[in-house]
Amino acid sequence: MLRLNCFFSAHEGKYEEALDAALALTACSRKDEGTVAYDTFESATNPDVFMICETWENEEVLKNTWRPSISSSMWVNSSNSAR
Amino acid sequence: MLRLNCFFSAHEGKYEEALDAALALTACSRKDEGTVAYDTFESATNPDVFMICETWENEEVLKNTWRPSISSSMWVNSSNSAR
Repeated sequence: MLRLNCFFSAHEGKYEEALDAALALTACSRKDEGTVAYDTFESATNPDVFMICETWENEEVLKNTWRPSISSSMWVNSSNSAR
Repeated sequence: MLRLNCFFSAHEGKYEEALDAALALTACSRKDEGTVAYDTFESATNPDVFMICETWENEEVLKNTWRPSISSSMWVNSSNSAR
């Protein structure tokens, strides 16, 4: 299996929008073939930080899966989001 | 580096207690030598499901770190918590 932890932060004032987008992505991705588990998590200590935890059967199904486009204006990547 | 995803569910009616314990563990563990990142996350879709995401410099520091005891009556393990 393949596990991905995807951290991101909502822009200021965009928490609900980011959460809604993450929940929509989660709902879609759970239907993808080869998805073992998929969930959106909210940090209990870092405001605006989310983590999407994805578990896939293998790398091949991940490469082949449908990927919805996500508005880059809503989210920012942060290598420090897990702190 | 070593990444651990620790999923658990609060027993019914014990959400706040479980969250408080997880936050206390997070605060302690962030001070441990060799901790790169440590945070508590709450599932946005599964009521009562948490994930503690731990990143350690290496396996050795994880083995040597102080581990507080956690009340097993408060939490239950669930292999399906990430779903």
